[in-house]
Amino acid sequence: MKIILDAMGGDNAPLEIVKGALQAHRDFGVDIVLTGREEDIRQAAAQCGETLPEGLTIRHCTETIEMCDDPALACRRKKDASMTVGLQMLRAGEGDAFISAGSTGALLSGATLLVKRVRGIRRAAMAPLIPTAGGDAVLVDCGANIDCTPEYLLQFAYIGNFYARHALKLERPRVALLNIGAEESKGMALQKEAYALLQEAGEAGHLNFIGNIEAKDALKGGADVIVADGFSGNVMLKTIEGVGSFLKVKLKDIFFKNALTKFAALLVKDGVTDIRDTLDPNERGATPFLGIAKPVLKAHGSSNARAIRNAVRAAIACAESSLEQEIAEHITLMQTGERTAGEKEAAPKENG
Amino acid sequence: MKIILDAMGGDNAPLEIVKGALQAHRDFGVDIVLTGREEDIRQAAAQCGETLPEGLTIRHCTETIEMCDDPALACRRKKDASMTVGLQMLRAGEGDAFISAGSTGALLSGATLLVKRVRGIRRAAMAPLIPTAGGDAVLVDCGANIDCTPEYLLQFAYIGNFYARHALKLERPRVALLNIGAEESKGMALQKEAYALLQEAGEAGHLNFIGNIEAKDALKGGADVIVADGFSGNVMLKTIEGVGSFLKVKLKDIFFKNALTKFAALLVKDGVTDIRDTLDPNERGATPFLGIAKPVLKAHGSSNARAIRNAVRAAIACAESSLEQEIAEHITLMQTGERTAGEKEAAPKENG
Repeated sequence: MKIILDAMGGDNAPLEIVKGALQAHRDFGVDIVLTGREEDIRQAAAQCGETLPEGLTIRHCTETIEMCDDPALACRRKKDASMTVGLQMLRAGEGDAFISAGSTGALLSGATLLVKRVRGIRRAAMAPLIPTAGGDAVLVDCGANIDCTPEYLLQFAYIGNFYARHALKLERPRVALLNIGAEESKGMALQKEAYALLQEAGEAGHLNFIGNIEAKDALKGGADVIVADGFSGNVMLKTIEGVGSFLKVKLKDIFFKNALTKFAALLVKDGVTDIRDTLDPNERGATPFLGIAKPVLKAHGSSNARAIRNAVRAAIACAESSLEQEIAEHITLMQTGERTAGEKEAAPKENG
Repeated sequence: MKIILDAMGGDNAPLEIVKGALQAHRDFGVDIVLTGREEDIRQAAAQCGETLPEGLTIRHCTETIEMCDDPALACRRKKDASMTVGLQMLRAGEGDAFISAGSTGALLSGATLLVKRVRGIRRAAMAPLIPTAGGDAVLVDCGANIDCTPEYLLQFAYIGNFYARHALKLERPRVALLNIGAEESKGMALQKEAYALLQEAGEAGHLNFIGNIEAKDALKGGADVIVADGFSGNVMLKTIEGVGSFLKVKLKDIFFKNALTKFAALLVKDGVTDIRDTLDPNERGATPFLGIAKPVLKAHGSSNARAIRNAVRAAIACAESSLEQEIAEHITLMQTGERTAGEKEAAPKENG
């Protein structure tokens, strides 16, 4: 197993990326190739007081994709960027999965352009695991696709379902459609039409579709796969993060009030750390782009070493699953014959 | 000041409604008229061990709008329902504001039909106060309008702005558009077009428009008025509620673990109660329908007595403001000349 890791992506690159790679290599015994400027990577390792061990190698490249680069063109223009080179390596079979903490848009475009989508998949989707009172759930999509069609949502449901089976170890994940009420008639035209497609898939026994779900009930643990257009999925994800960081501040205020509350903090430290971790994107490590022909994962832009280590763990799990094959085998179930405006343009990007 | 209160709406009616009315009457010294079945209301008061004091009266009516009633038709069909009668009384000037914990859809339709919108306002919007790290913010809309046009969002921004000036006591509230990134180019066509309208209003000095905002940054306290279409606004609101109840469960687990953690709980009790209250819809009391010609407020369906008491407090604040007049005076700023499919149908509902 070899994981390709973009050493130059994210707010804390390359130091935290290299540090995370060292940790992951130790913890999971997996080979890692770091893409990026060799000098910078070696310097980062030196800052960690280490030299790169066997199994941790560098693929030198000179460019870096910046947040200001046009996401749609970044990987086309910067052919020697750490992200572009990593994606090319993945495509060529020189690794089993690719992780970057760099620009989400550039990574999505680059993955679609270079690694390509599974044939028949309309759009790749970002599928983070989100915390709920009933354990983790898959939220798909959470921002890769802003303008969605009902067929996209049907595909998100299937690929989310396959992913949840691996990631959450569930036989028949409960698939629900994010909506503003449980009734079939709720939502915009998009949700109503997607509901009909999902219900059909449920009745045919292809999905365990349990209907619409409100964000509130999803967070109570009401579903294992939450299907959403990228806009509302993103609003949900960012709200979870926002409330999480809001409460972190509030809890700090409570516990740092005086000597007694500081003492109380000591007594419940483990539990509070546990809550904080549950809501911390760094602990979740990385989000896969489902629907891409090989595993490509996006680590949080603010990833620290621990996040990168956890991202490697997530990438290993993705690489060990046969997710892409499973999607390919079931693709006819996910096609409605819907023709979209972008279809002509999208077709050549599919994996031939 | 006289507040009209639907005694029959919500999961805990009439007991908690009557109990809340008694508390509000005591706490705020305001007159309250309860609409509903006289016998049921008197019985509820008796259960509270009280008889209705002077200033707390009943307008007897025989029907109740149920959750299964068609929201669009409920107030038309049930003319003697507690909600319909309350709205009619408000329209006739027999009270200064109306509160119901009953069906949101029926209340919105009924308010639009009977009390009517301020002339020129396209759609009434629900505008709850949401908790942020920087204090409360107004979220508008949060579910009344699923399919929005850019002009609706412009109007939500203005009415949210006027409301925030009263409710948050701010001179120039920071108005932001809920989006999936801060850049102008983010979002669907709706957000892009609304952005242009809002920017224009900002440049003309009519609004303190600060641009797009992500849900995460809004929860950090980045804006005072968060403008959203009803679908994504609802997802945001319900996610806040969901994370809140998720954390309530988690905190309970932490503090009830053993004798030491229970002791810790005692030491930080006030702080934890404070956090819980911040995220509890019952504490916020009620959400006004902005754009209706007189104050109509929706209390949470699961309102308890405390929520109803707080709803009365919110209704008093709305009735004391000159919000509707302010909206009417600035209506030309909120009109883009956009013609929508629903316009013909909507026009007769406006306040002539």
